[in-house]
Amino acid sequence: MYRNFRFDIIGSWEKSRLGVLETPHGSIKTPAFIFCGTKASVKGVSPQQLQEAGTQIVLSNTYHLFSYPSSEHIKKRGSLHKFIGWSGPLLTDSGGFQIFSLGHGSIADEIKGKRSSTATLVKINEEGAFFKSYWNGDLQLLTPEKSIEAQQNLGADLIVSFDECTPYHSDKKYTEQSMERSHRWEKRSLDEFMRRNDFSQALYGVVQGGVYGDLRKRSVEFANENPFFATAIGGTLGASKKQMYEVVEMAMEGLNMARPIHLLGIGGISDILKGVELGIDTFDCVHPTRIARHGGALVKSSYRNSKNREHINLKKSEYAEDDNPIEADCDCSTCRYFSRAYLHYLLKANELLALSAITIHNIRFMNKFMDEIRKGILGQNLNDVRNKWC
Amino acid sequence: MYRNFRFDIIGSWEKSRLGVLETPHGSIKTPAFIFCGTKASVKGVSPQQLQEAGTQIVLSNTYHLFSYPSSEHIKKRGSLHKFIGWSGPLLTDSGGFQIFSLGHGSIADEIKGKRSSTATLVKINEEGAFFKSYWNGDLQLLTPEKSIEAQQNLGADLIVSFDECTPYHSDKKYTEQSMERSHRWEKRSLDEFMRRNDFSQALYGVVQGGVYGDLRKRSVEFANENPFFATAIGGTLGASKKQMYEVVEMAMEGLNMARPIHLLGIGGISDILKGVELGIDTFDCVHPTRIARHGGALVKSSYRNSKNREHINLKKSEYAEDDNPIEADCDCSTCRYFSRAYLHYLLKANELLALSAITIHNIRFMNKFMDEIRKGILGQNLNDVRNKWC
Repeated sequence: MYRNFRFDIIGSWEKSRLGVLETPHGSIKTPAFIFCGTKASVKGVSPQQLQEAGTQIVLSNTYHLFSYPSSEHIKKRGSLHKFIGWSGPLLTDSGGFQIFSLGHGSIADEIKGKRSSTATLVKINEEGAFFKSYWNGDLQLLTPEKSIEAQQNLGADLIVSFDECTPYHSDKKYTEQSMERSHRWEKRSLDEFMRRNDFSQALYGVVQGGVYGDLRKRSVEFANENPFFATAIGGTLGASKKQMYEVVEMAMEGLNMARPIHLLGIGGISDILKGVELGIDTFDCVHPTRIARHGGALVKSSYRNSKNREHINLKKSEYAEDDNPIEADCDCSTCRYFSRAYLHYLLKANELLALSAITIHNIRFMNKFMDEIRKGILGQNLNDVRNKWC
Repeated sequence: MYRNFRFDIIGSWEKSRLGVLETPHGSIKTPAFIFCGTKASVKGVSPQQLQEAGTQIVLSNTYHLFSYPSSEHIKKRGSLHKFIGWSGPLLTDSGGFQIFSLGHGSIADEIKGKRSSTATLVKINEEGAFFKSYWNGDLQLLTPEKSIEAQQNLGADLIVSFDECTPYHSDKKYTEQSMERSHRWEKRSLDEFMRRNDFSQALYGVVQGGVYGDLRKRSVEFANENPFFATAIGGTLGASKKQMYEVVEMAMEGLNMARPIHLLGIGGISDILKGVELGIDTFDCVHPTRIARHGGALVKSSYRNSKNREHINLKKSEYAEDDNPIEADCDCSTCRYFSRAYLHYLLKANELLALSAITIHNIRFMNKFMDEIRKGILGQNLNDVRNKWC
C-alpha cells in the first residue's frame, strides 16, 4: 500500500527517535521541521534559497489552493512539485484546519486555548464542511473524498486525512461527537485514498480528542487500527505549555510507534525539543516564517534579551546601530551579508528585502536546530541542545 | 586626483566603445547597466542574487539616504558597501534628481517630456535646494557641498556633482539660467570634492542644457574644462524617442571622449542600444526592476506579443496556463525554476516571491543584454544584437 515509502528508526535516546522517512522525492532525516508554503510559496523565499538553508520538506495548504488556483489547475501544470519548482518532499494538509479557523478566528491561537469566540461561519454536517472561499467568497464544500481528490491532484508525497480541528473551548460532549465524526471522515479519507492509490502518496491519520485523556485514548486506538502510513496529532493541545505537553503525552500513549508521528501546528523552539523528547518525529508551524515578516529573528539563548522570547525584534530602535549579524555563529546568507542595523533600517524603510532576509535566517536557524537535535539523539544527550537553543 | 580609477577603451565599432572602468571595488566592463538600489537595496533582491545574475554595479540615491537613515548613520556603519553587503562597485547620485522630482511630479516622465505640471514644492536659490524630507516632512537643504559630503559619507566609488535637473517644459531662458547655476553648483561640487579627496571616489560632471543645442554645447565645454573623472548626460532629453536621440547626440558633440560617459535615467532596451551606438558607456534606470514588481518581465523580441513593448505582463490571464518559463533560453534562477503560470499565480495571489523572482529575471536579462552588446562591439556588428534584443 505504501511501497514507495519507508520509515526507519535508526537511533533513539529515551523516548526521542532518530529516523529516516523515505518518499518518492527524497528522504527526510527526522526529527524534522516542515516549513509552511501556505499558498504554494514559502513567502518571499525561492526553492533555491530553501535548499541553500538546508530545508528538507515544505508543506502547502489544501484549503488555500482548493479555493485558488484549484487543485485541478495545479494538476494540469504537472504537480505541486513542478508548479512551485521544489523537487524535494512535500506535504499537504487536508484543508480542515483552515476551514475551522474561519469559524473560530485564528485557529493557531485556538489550539493553544487563547480565544473564547465560538462564532462560526462554517456549516458542518456528516457530509463535510461548508465554507466561504477566502478567494472570492463563494460557498464551497469540502468532504473527505474531495480533500483526498484535491490532495491527489496536488500530488504531495505526504497527505492528511480530513478531520475537524476541535477548538479548545468546546465542551467534552462536543469534542467527543466531533472526534467520532472525524473518525468517520478519516475512514472515508482512507477509503478514498485506497481507491485512488497510485503509490505516489502516503496518508496520515489524525488523533483527536481535545484535552480529554479517555477521548485521546479512543482516537489513538482508531488511528492504530487503520492502515495509515503515519499519525498526526491534531486538535487542541490546551491552554498552557504545561497542558500542551500533557495533551501530547496523552495522545502518544499507546500510539503505534513504528509509524512517523507529526505534531500539527507547533513551532516554538522549546516546544519542539519537548515534542522530540516525547517521541515526535516532525513538526510544522507558520511561526518561524511569520515572525520573520514582522522583524522577528530567531536567536539561540546566548543572543536573547528576554527570557520569554525565542527571537529578537529587529524593528526595535536598540538595533539601529547594532553592526553585528543576527547571530555571529550563523552561516546563513543573511548573517553573512547583513548587520542587524541594516535589517532594522530595511524594516523601517519598508524594503522588501528585510522580509526575505529574516525569513532565510529563521529557516536556517530551524534547520540547524533540528540538525543539532538529531546529533544530540545520536550522542545520547539533548541537554547541550537545550542549553544552547532553548 | 583619480589615482585609484582608470577608464580604458579597449575596442570600438563606429561610435560604440568597449571599455573597462576600474574602481577600488573592482572593474566594470562597459557598456554597462547600473541597477537602482534606491533606498540602499535593490528591492527584494539580495547582493548574492545580484551577483548570481551577473551584476557589475549598483547605485543608491543620496536624496533618500540623506533623509533616512542619513549619510552619517551609514558612515558609522563603515560605508554604503558594508551597510548593504555589496562588495562590488557602487555609484551614488547627487540627490538633485529626486529633489526636483518633488517639484515636478515623476521626473522620469518629466525627462521624457510627458508631464505638463510645473508646480513646485522646492525653493531653489544660489545656495542650494530646499525640500521636504520624504521620510518625515522636515524642511531640508541640499547644497553642492552637502551633497558631496553626504556622498563621501556614503563612500560609493562613483559620485555625481550636484545640479538642477531642468524639466522639459522649461523655456529656453529658464533652462539657460538653470544650466548656468548648475555649472556654478558643479564647480562648487568639484571644489568640495578636491578639498575632501581621499582617492577612494571619482566625480562625475553633468551636462545640462535641455533640448537646446547651443546650451548643450556650452555645457559640454564646461564639463570638458573641469577635471571631472567622467561625464553624465543629464536634464531633459525631450518629448519623443526621436528627440531623445537627437538631444543625446547634441550632448555628445565635442565631449571629451577619454572619459566614461553615463546617460542618466535611460533603461529601455532599444534606447540603450541606441545610446551605445552614440558612444554612451553606462546607463541607469529603475525601469527593469520597477516593471518587475508590476508583473512586467523583459523578453527578447521573439518572445514578445506586442511590437511596442519590450516586456510581457505576467498578470494577464493569457499566462495562467502557460507552462513555459519567461524565456526558454534564459539561464536565470527564475527561468530555471518557475513557469509563467506559476508567476502569474503568485502575482494574483499577492505572493512576495513573484516580485523578487521577476526582478531577478529582469536583472539577468539586462546583464546578458549588455554582455551581448560588448561582444557585438568586439565583433564589429551590433545588428544581430538589435535583431535579437530590440
